Amino acid sequence: MKYAIGIDVGGTSVKLGFVSVEGEVAEAWEIPTRTEDGGKEILPDIAASVKKRIAEKGMADDIVGAGIGLPGPVDDEGVIRKAVNLHWDRIFNVADELSELLGGMKVKAGNDANVAALGEYWQGAGKDYGDMVMVTLGTGIGGGIIHHGQIFAGTTGAGGEIGHLCLNPYEKIRCNCGNAGCFEQYASATGIVRLTREELEASDEDSLLRDTEITAKAMWDAVKAGDALAIRVADRFGFYLGWGLSVIAGVVNPEVFVLGGGVSQAGDIILPFVRKNFEEHAFHACRDAQIVIATLGNGAGTLGAAKMVIN
Amino acid sequence: MKYAIGIDVGGTSVKLGFVSVEGEVAEAWEIPTRTEDGGKEILPDIAASVKKRIAEKGMADDIVGAGIGLPGPVDDEGVIRKAVNLHWDRIFNVADELSELLGGMKVKAGNDANVAALGEYWQGAGKDYGDMVMVTLGTGIGGGIIHHGQIFAGTTGAGGEIGHLCLNPYEKIRCNCGNAGCFEQYASATGIVRLTREELEASDEDSLLRDTEITAKAMWDAVKAGDALAIRVADRFGFYLGWGLSVIAGVVNPEVFVLGGGVSQAGDIILPFVRKNFEEHAFHACRDAQIVIATLGNGAGTLGAAKMVIN
Repeated sequence: MKYAIGIDVGGTSVKLGFVSVEGEVAEAWEIPTRTEDGGKEILPDIAASVKKRIAEKGMADDIVGAGIGLPGPVDDEGVIRKAVNLHWDRIFNVADELSELLGGMKVKAGNDANVAALGEYWQGAGKDYGDMVMVTLGTGIGGGIIHHGQIFAGTTGAGGEIGHLCLNPYEKIRCNCGNAGCFEQYASATGIVRLTREELEASDEDSLLRDTEITAKAMWDAVKAGDALAIRVADRFGFYLGWGLSVIAGVVNPEVFVLGGGVSQAGDIILPFVRKNFEEHAFHACRDAQIVIATLGNGAGTLGAAKMVIN
Repeated sequence: MKYAIGIDVGGTSVKLGFVSVEGEVAEAWEIPTRTEDGGKEILPDIAASVKKRIAEKGMADDIVGAGIGLPGPVDDEGVIRKAVNLHWDRIFNVADELSELLGGMKVKAGNDANVAALGEYWQGAGKDYGDMVMVTLGTGIGGGIIHHGQIFAGTTGAGGEIGHLCLNPYEKIRCNCGNAGCFEQYASATGIVRLTREELEASDEDSLLRDTEITAKAMWDAVKAGDALAIRVADRFGFYLGWGLSVIAGVVNPEVFVLGGGVSQAGDIILPFVRKNFEEHAFHACRDAQIVIATLGNGAGTLGAAKMVIN
């Protein structure tokens, strides 16, 4: 059996794994992400750890290459422009640099959200579909487009970075990106907290969400308990997410949307709220797209990274 | 020199041409589109005309294949689902059927807007760029995405059919598609007429656009003449088009937008109105996309159709 090395770089740790060409994770480990000194040790640390592990396992002849997912925009060539969380501020070809550190091994690099999308497409919720859009609902909204089985990176590596498409140009509150009215201001975990606060302030209505810490999880738990105010928040969240997905469908016409990230852990309960609004706003030719919940969790990154070098 | 046959099928006529592999149109002609009897003669008519012309010119050995653009959604395999203007109501593989009529010639089929986009990408305004989105501003809005030099058809052939992405879910007036708030309700020629009427009704202000037939052309002529009311209409049009393009950029991150169709014939005067609003709403990573005017006009369809079978 042949294996690829999947590498998923985060701001505090790097997840690594040997992934068989059939999609089984044979060995998984982590190392810390050393961001000091402009993060200059991150790639050498990864290379050293990979080489050591290959030697220990005697797998030198079984490795087809390595894929690496990074928290920043990465283009088709493997060039990263900025990675704030890694303290990287230069534009360089990550794939080439890691390949050199690994003695010329075949290396491909991608944005972490795109790489996770590829993982879900290969072994997760997108497995049985063609073109897919992954939507990661966390503090913000990340995303990735898989077209003909490949990551759609876009011109500057921002393809599928849907969190900042402007749904509401009349919004007064600024997004972290500097614009206003971004998708992630409404349909992320942060958006859920905001919508919940708005509903709580709009009335004195009794609710499980009063006088408690407001989180996306608490909101969905209240929906599950039948809380009327929480159901109104879920309706508004579903409106924004369903509308946003309909816009994306109008551009890239995918067969499936896969919802991942913290918010998606509430499970299938979120789907009817999204589906109803998606169908109301989607163009008829795009309306059959499925909307499903991601299945791989944090493992998607390592799998997708490995898949980049597996044909 | 080798040639491909480019075929651009419209509701009243079919444009055909021999296009060299270097992009020169060597011979161009038209035949009527016979839509009677469910349009069953359309493909046989095209095949007969092509075979006759090849024989006349003695070019049988010089033809690499034929590409055909059609007014309806066509997927990657060449399957068309519906073409109202051709009176076709069956789902079938156009590429296979035309190939058979042409004695096994290599044939590819695409949606007409996507095919025109490929033409502009190959020989027109998109020539010097990578990933491109074509936006055709006519009675409605059509579009096409070119990714890695290829048409991005989408799952049901509706990729890049951006006219019906919902910009305004609060809109009360219905679009022809049955939804409300579609991009083309604001940023098409029809949208310009609508925005002009709204401005005229909102005040008694003097304007070149009063007591005359309102068309997109008249509106841009009035802008060129410095008409204050027309400039306000152009501002509102620019807001919707710039905002809409920013949304598309947030999904597919193209290097260039090419604006075609009747409205684009006003020329570069429309660009500042669009650019300003695009930059205000686009995510910073996508903001460098260029916005330019198409250069090929009606010729884009034949060229793009031919290009589908030229590598």
